[in-house]
Amino acid sequence: MESAIDAHLVCPRTISRRVPDDYQPPFPMWVGRADAPVTQVAMAYLGVQYRDDTQRGVALAALATIVGMLEGRHRADHYDLTQHTDADGYANLMAVGYWRNPVLFCDWLRTPTVAEWWGSDERLTDGIGFFREITTPRVDQFETLYAFQDHLPGVGAVMDGVSGDINEHGYWGSMRERFPRSQTDWMQPSGRLRIASGDPNCGGRVIVQGHDNIAIIRSGQDWREAGTEERALYLDEIRPTLSAGMDFLRDEGQAVGCYSNRFVQSIDLDGNLLDETYNIGHWRSLEKLERWAESHPTHLRIFTTFFRVAAGLEKLRLYHEVSVSDASNQTFEYINCHANTGMLRDAVTTE
Amino acid sequence: MESAIDAHLVCPRTISRRVPDDYQPPFPMWVGRADAPVTQVAMAYLGVQYRDDTQRGVALAALATIVGMLEGRHRADHYDLTQHTDADGYANLMAVGYWRNPVLFCDWLRTPTVAEWWGSDERLTDGIGFFREITTPRVDQFETLYAFQDHLPGVGAVMDGVSGDINEHGYWGSMRERFPRSQTDWMQPSGRLRIASGDPNCGGRVIVQGHDNIAIIRSGQDWREAGTEERALYLDEIRPTLSAGMDFLRDEGQAVGCYSNRFVQSIDLDGNLLDETYNIGHWRSLEKLERWAESHPTHLRIFTTFFRVAAGLEKLRLYHEVSVSDASNQTFEYINCHANTGMLRDAVTTE
Repeated sequence: MESAIDAHLVCPRTISRRVPDDYQPPFPMWVGRADAPVTQVAMAYLGVQYRDDTQRGVALAALATIVGMLEGRHRADHYDLTQHTDADGYANLMAVGYWRNPVLFCDWLRTPTVAEWWGSDERLTDGIGFFREITTPRVDQFETLYAFQDHLPGVGAVMDGVSGDINEHGYWGSMRERFPRSQTDWMQPSGRLRIASGDPNCGGRVIVQGHDNIAIIRSGQDWREAGTEERALYLDEIRPTLSAGMDFLRDEGQAVGCYSNRFVQSIDLDGNLLDETYNIGHWRSLEKLERWAESHPTHLRIFTTFFRVAAGLEKLRLYHEVSVSDASNQTFEYINCHANTGMLRDAVTTE
Repeated sequence: MESAIDAHLVCPRTISRRVPDDYQPPFPMWVGRADAPVTQVAMAYLGVQYRDDTQRGVALAALATIVGMLEGRHRADHYDLTQHTDADGYANLMAVGYWRNPVLFCDWLRTPTVAEWWGSDERLTDGIGFFREITTPRVDQFETLYAFQDHLPGVGAVMDGVSGDINEHGYWGSMRERFPRSQTDWMQPSGRLRIASGDPNCGGRVIVQGHDNIAIIRSGQDWREAGTEERALYLDEIRPTLSAGMDFLRDEGQAVGCYSNRFVQSIDLDGNLLDETYNIGHWRSLEKLERWAESHPTHLRIFTTFFRVAAGLEKLRLYHEVSVSDASNQTFEYINCHANTGMLRDAVTTE
């Protein structure tokens, strides 16, 4: 049994844990481990948005262009592709790229292929929308949790390995306690989401200024290799409740501090659906996420189901990753997206 | 908004809270307040146990004798009466007495009427069982929580008043944080329950030695004055789930650290049922209680229902009180009770 906080990230605490020192989790779980030279990562959600099915070809071509960049110079260390329909009925394709070195990510972002493509006036006339939502959390600003130990998805894919089974899970508050930063910092939000330039109601280019400690959770379900029983467990038992919870956050999340919630399904480059989903939620703070997760009936139901089946999972892969970031390490940019896309909905216009 | 921890019990923390300083609970709740001279209270569960309905008259007469003592010299500051059927199918009547001064409680216990009655050999031949489970927690060793502000039941009835609405509720971990002692102490258990004298399998007198920080929760529901709608809310929606959870703890609690669990209904002196129930649970530790409460489907369902209706409750009175105590402030004594009564079931015999 080891701590979720890697040895080189342990520091004298000013904030204590929630559970006694001899706490024993009810079943094993694991976290990703990065070697000490990894100090900060980049997570770039790169999206394409379209309204009509007739635009799907154009959108998929744009996604392919983005993938070309992710595989080009200063390439992403890992990426995956998804699609989802948002609350306004628009279809969205996303590539999410992960880098284990923010300097190389910056280099990527400045690569002419990338910078010129994003900056080109052609993007304004492609007839579809584009967005990029990027954060670069330091290693004390994110945590992971896997019910398996191989081929870690998401940010786990750019780390160096996997831990032994860890102590900090199985109780409310453990997510926060897996953040190295929680040893000394409440990770509270500063300020509000703000329209930095542009006007969401007029389309075109809009930039949103974030704020410290926006929390992002990616919570995934991969049943690609699951047998009949585990497929049924996920599809018949877990997913209906999960969908209800995610629909709630998508449609009514604003009141509980959820800026954006996208329940996405993995696709290949041709847009074919894969047996993998995840939710990407952006929250005003870790605390708002905690309050919702530990009190909403849908999430509690998922939690108790997971408690019941966790120890016996074989091929059904359940995991999550949660990060916070400094306002200065956030980029929220939109081109011709509808006014409720991502951070746009809750961003205020100030003089 | 005030802290659940009364001003004169606040001390420099060595253990931090679970939530940020600006945490705001989702609806108001209140706690009992005792003036500073109250430093310790006594909670005495005084039971009568019988197997056959034909013994009910004898048992009710014994309960009346106990009530006579509770109303006699060094009388209890408050008491109430209940009945329940235990896992072994025995009926149990209990009077629970509360004193706001442990010295006066000691005086009561030493009153000849009380001491001689309990010590008499006649108790061995009455044909029914008796038990007394008594703890005297200090004021930093218990907490209360009420969804109402008048006529506090249980330990609240021996306090001096009620707080304004308090901060520490509405999140997992708030129960612990309402204990003044949680500021500096994890309230962890020491040792095990132990048979100090007697043999539970042989009947007669048995004494169980407790251990530090056994946690006792009294969790109550009073629908005596509730209107049609709130009666239905309790009887049709809350109670079935509550009963399932309490049955689980009664029958399978040992595995999760619950020593004893009695879901009792209030009665009058003639044994007539009143529209009031509460659960009395004895736990190895506050932590075991926390782990169960925040992960068991039945309790989570009760919790979400309560969240939904709390702000609108009018006459349905829901509350709880939780205490821990030092081993030296615990008395667990049994006369001719079956071997699974109270602390007997989980007490080990040592040389």
